[in-house]
Amino acid sequence: MPVYNAPIQDISFLLNDVLKLQQQNIPGYDALEPELLQAILEEGGKLASEVLAPLNASGDREGCHLENGVVRTPKGFKDAFDKVKEGGWTGLDCNPEFGGQGLPYIVATAIAEIFASANMAFGMYPGLTHGAYSAIHTHGSAEQKATYLPQLVSCKWTGTMNLTEPHCGTDLGLMRSKAEPNQDGSYAITGQKIFISAGDHDLAENIIHLVLAKIPGGPAGVKGISLFIVPKFLVQKEGALGPRNKVSVGKIEEKMGIHANATCVMNFDGATGFLLGQAHKGMRAMFTMMNEARLGVGVQGYAQAEVAYQNALAYAKDRLQGRAATGPENPDDAADPLIVHPDIRRNLMQQKSFVEGARAFAYWGAMLIDQGNLAGDEPAHGLVSLLTPVIKGFLTDRGFEFCVQAQQIFGGHGYIEEWGMSQFARDARIAMIYEGANGVQALDLVGRKLGQDGGKHALAFFELIKTFCAESASESPEFKADFIEPLKTASKQLQEAALYFMQNGLKSPNTALAGSYDFMHLFGHVCLGYVWARMAQQAFRNSAQGTGDAAFNETKIKTGLYYMQRELPATALHLARIKSGADPVMALTADQF
Amino acid sequence: MPVYNAPIQDISFLLNDVLKLQQQNIPGYDALEPELLQAILEEGGKLASEVLAPLNASGDREGCHLENGVVRTPKGFKDAFDKVKEGGWTGLDCNPEFGGQGLPYIVATAIAEIFASANMAFGMYPGLTHGAYSAIHTHGSAEQKATYLPQLVSCKWTGTMNLTEPHCGTDLGLMRSKAEPNQDGSYAITGQKIFISAGDHDLAENIIHLVLAKIPGGPAGVKGISLFIVPKFLVQKEGALGPRNKVSVGKIEEKMGIHANATCVMNFDGATGFLLGQAHKGMRAMFTMMNEARLGVGVQGYAQAEVAYQNALAYAKDRLQGRAATGPENPDDAADPLIVHPDIRRNLMQQKSFVEGARAFAYWGAMLIDQGNLAGDEPAHGLVSLLTPVIKGFLTDRGFEFCVQAQQIFGGHGYIEEWGMSQFARDARIAMIYEGANGVQALDLVGRKLGQDGGKHALAFFELIKTFCAESASESPEFKADFIEPLKTASKQLQEAALYFMQNGLKSPNTALAGSYDFMHLFGHVCLGYVWARMAQQAFRNSAQGTGDAAFNETKIKTGLYYMQRELPATALHLARIKSGADPVMALTADQF
Repeated sequence: MPVYNAPIQDISFLLNDVLKLQQQNIPGYDALEPELLQAILEEGGKLASEVLAPLNASGDREGCHLENGVVRTPKGFKDAFDKVKEGGWTGLDCNPEFGGQGLPYIVATAIAEIFASANMAFGMYPGLTHGAYSAIHTHGSAEQKATYLPQLVSCKWTGTMNLTEPHCGTDLGLMRSKAEPNQDGSYAITGQKIFISAGDHDLAENIIHLVLAKIPGGPAGVKGISLFIVPKFLVQKEGALGPRNKVSVGKIEEKMGIHANATCVMNFDGATGFLLGQAHKGMRAMFTMMNEARLGVGVQGYAQAEVAYQNALAYAKDRLQGRAATGPENPDDAADPLIVHPDIRRNLMQQKSFVEGARAFAYWGAMLIDQGNLAGDEPAHGLVSLLTPVIKGFLTDRGFEFCVQAQQIFGGHGYIEEWGMSQFARDARIAMIYEGANGVQALDLVGRKLGQDGGKHALAFFELIKTFCAESASESPEFKADFIEPLKTASKQLQEAALYFMQNGLKSPNTALAGSYDFMHLFGHVCLGYVWARMAQQAFRNSAQGTGDAAFNETKIKTGLYYMQRELPATALHLARIKSGADPVMALTADQF
Repeated sequence: MPVYNAPIQDISFLLNDVLKLQQQNIPGYDALEPELLQAILEEGGKLASEVLAPLNASGDREGCHLENGVVRTPKGFKDAFDKVKEGGWTGLDCNPEFGGQGLPYIVATAIAEIFASANMAFGMYPGLTHGAYSAIHTHGSAEQKATYLPQLVSCKWTGTMNLTEPHCGTDLGLMRSKAEPNQDGSYAITGQKIFISAGDHDLAENIIHLVLAKIPGGPAGVKGISLFIVPKFLVQKEGALGPRNKVSVGKIEEKMGIHANATCVMNFDGATGFLLGQAHKGMRAMFTMMNEARLGVGVQGYAQAEVAYQNALAYAKDRLQGRAATGPENPDDAADPLIVHPDIRRNLMQQKSFVEGARAFAYWGAMLIDQGNLAGDEPAHGLVSLLTPVIKGFLTDRGFEFCVQAQQIFGGHGYIEEWGMSQFARDARIAMIYEGANGVQALDLVGRKLGQDGGKHALAFFELIKTFCAESASESPEFKADFIEPLKTASKQLQEAALYFMQNGLKSPNTALAGSYDFMHLFGHVCLGYVWARMAQQAFRNSAQGTGDAAFNETKIKTGLYYMQRELPATALHLARIKSGADPVMALTADQF
């Protein structure tokens, strides 16, 4: 049975030593003393290891079941959900006015990672509820806030997001669900939505569906989409639950993974809905949540790789098979542990250097979100808006890939469900798809974000890297040679790719689009190169000053070195692909395929 | 529901135009007239599409069940197996003396691909039986051959391969199963074997288990392993089935995929076994089958990618979502088909250029096997022995990767089992593991094959590429620039990597081992570059001479061009990783992880 232990030392190193939360000029960050963070992480880690992780495999096996129109979650989920609620974990970064803890988003991100590693399907229940909270918090009327937010913060009620329809996913302009005005100011929502995660379950008293639909007579396409609050049970004046709304589960999808979270077909048959925000501005309301939601999915990606890595590492240390090429290392037994073999090391180092880099990248993104939201820092907001598709696309693609690599260390046992490695890969797979499939992330990055506001966020990113490299002039020659030089090379390649798009994009819009996926990965590598340089810089400084855990510092530097020497050079390949242009990609007509 | 159509035009192009079977000086190849091949492929394709493919998804859902000690295969499998037997498909390349068709291995390989694409779990039943046939055909006594081969050729009986034990997979020297001599010359086999594919089922009257075990008193480690024939039902003098042998199914494993083929724990409790070949030479007997078996697994890898590609392509042409960046291409509808989008094209072209290259590589390998076996061509035998780990490792890694990419084209629907794309990925995943996990293939390549016989097979490979490039001097400048030049570059990089291993391997054996996985992929890319150049050369010639299907030739060239421009440049990355040496890989102690 797989195990999970929250990587608290690594998280603390990032928050305290690298990102130096307490020194940031962001409201609320000054209160984030190392002791407080440690206590939160330890408590969250304990809950994850002792309550959530033990339900991960059983939840996968049992799955969710539709009984008489109601979804039953796997055994133990209700108790676990109650424990999470009781501990106040559901409202960490929510507004205290509505019962939240008022902590910054970065703290909630660290906890979300820990919960996702322990049990991804479970973590989606509070995760989606947080999305509904954010939408209503940002766009709701005072009355809507008062009615829904306290219940969503406490997860007494949970939330869902209803976008996709059978014939339209990415292209929401094709949407058919309609919202017809009722006399009382509410709307009658009719239509079918699919892929609704946590669309129904038995963990909460009520479910607040946020539903995109079109008000008849509105503009065509995405400009005519509005967002509605559609509760499973209508809420009465005093907050008591009223009658069942006309929304029902059509079926539960059989899917590759996240079995413990029901993916529902939802039927709205004249269900009562309440307009959230302005009519026809539903897409805008959705998009305000996107940065957070997509960052959250990126976190899921590497969180699965983290837990898969932990188990692969344990297996590699435990399983005796073959001998080291340099002579027996475990002479008293008939064989050495797998970890002596260089190709097993290669595999583990790839996983480790990815996961730690990914975590740093995601937390940096979370800090930028706080900077934007809490400190009103517009450049930070712009930067994280640029980085969001990279965090989502790169971290979920690689996260899945490394779950598969971790599974490989187990040999045949990795293919057997009993060992749990298959589940990590199957669960991680969805993160590449939902909240915008990764091809759409690449399109968003190259087609929108790169040139947004005259390209100033991209320029700010390059400036940031340049400044960081310039400021490292006084660092050790070793650090500069091993970390700064490769980062400079990679960053230049990213700039070259962006320039290539600019120079060729006007002639042929397909040039940038044909290179978009490679650009997303190229960008991801540069970001991981950057955060690895920052982590290594701090580890070198700690070593020089004799602060921190010496073994930890050394491991950090060597792991970073692996990334710089073996992973970062992928940037050249992505650049070469990009610069081959659209011709090889678009050479065939559709019929010639 | 997924569909499958055998890619007969592509297969015929390879066999007739590129590999030119009829012109090879290999016994039996002269009879392979295009019309005969066409007839075989069409019949096999029909069976695959109409009988095997329709059972793929249902077999996955239903799986195998252990009932009263006997494994029940999914509904329809028995009927389908009977049809395959009746058509004579199980003995295509078997010896006519025992009822086989006596066709070359390359023909059986093409049919194995087609069956694997249609239903991988099904194809394993005859596939494993063929392995048992080969072992007995090569190492059995006249009596053993007479007793078992006709039944295995017809698949009236099927075969299995019993190597792995709970504590040993790759490292068979740790094996504990023992074979104690009985008075009558047979052996009493005792032990537990795991991961036994098709270990039991209801498709055949008898199951012939080939079992590795140690005869007490023999040499330690792998040198003391012998191979035994252990029938499920003992066979009596006249071939009639006798009593049940003491071999039983302990359990069926729950696994990620290939659910329609039971992966069994097999318990041997003093089961009667018959020595196959010489005592203590069991590993040698196993290894004689390895080239074929591993090539067969490589075929499974790209065969899954082929069927996944076919379905992704159909979906990309059918699903309307968004508009082309260059203006609507389907103005009468509300949206354009997915295939207009450059990133969807990028994804499809990656799949297509891989699958067609992989097929060419595998068939070339199969031809080399025929050259070795039928024409007694030692250099061909040596070359395919070098290429086998590349075929197995590279084609299954990439095959799985492209199943995942094909799944991605479906967006959320790709994650839903109903669409079948998840199954292709889940089934393909095992091919990276069984018949030697891919890390073991890389070890075999770098640790054994590269330097085998003084490195002469590797030298022969490089010479082959060099000669091919030199002989293309008279070809069109376009072909030389687009295909020969990139191939030369990639091949030089492979040579550079091999040289690096030679120069550093003595100082540190870990240098080569730390780069082994990248070397396997680098080698795979060079091989695909080579076969793409050969295919493009033929397509250019056909075009110039006005022979063949003009659209097919054009598509072939453009698809090859995609490979050369966008995929082959990966060689530089692999070389860079290799030349970073063992230091970044081995920097941490086991405790520091």
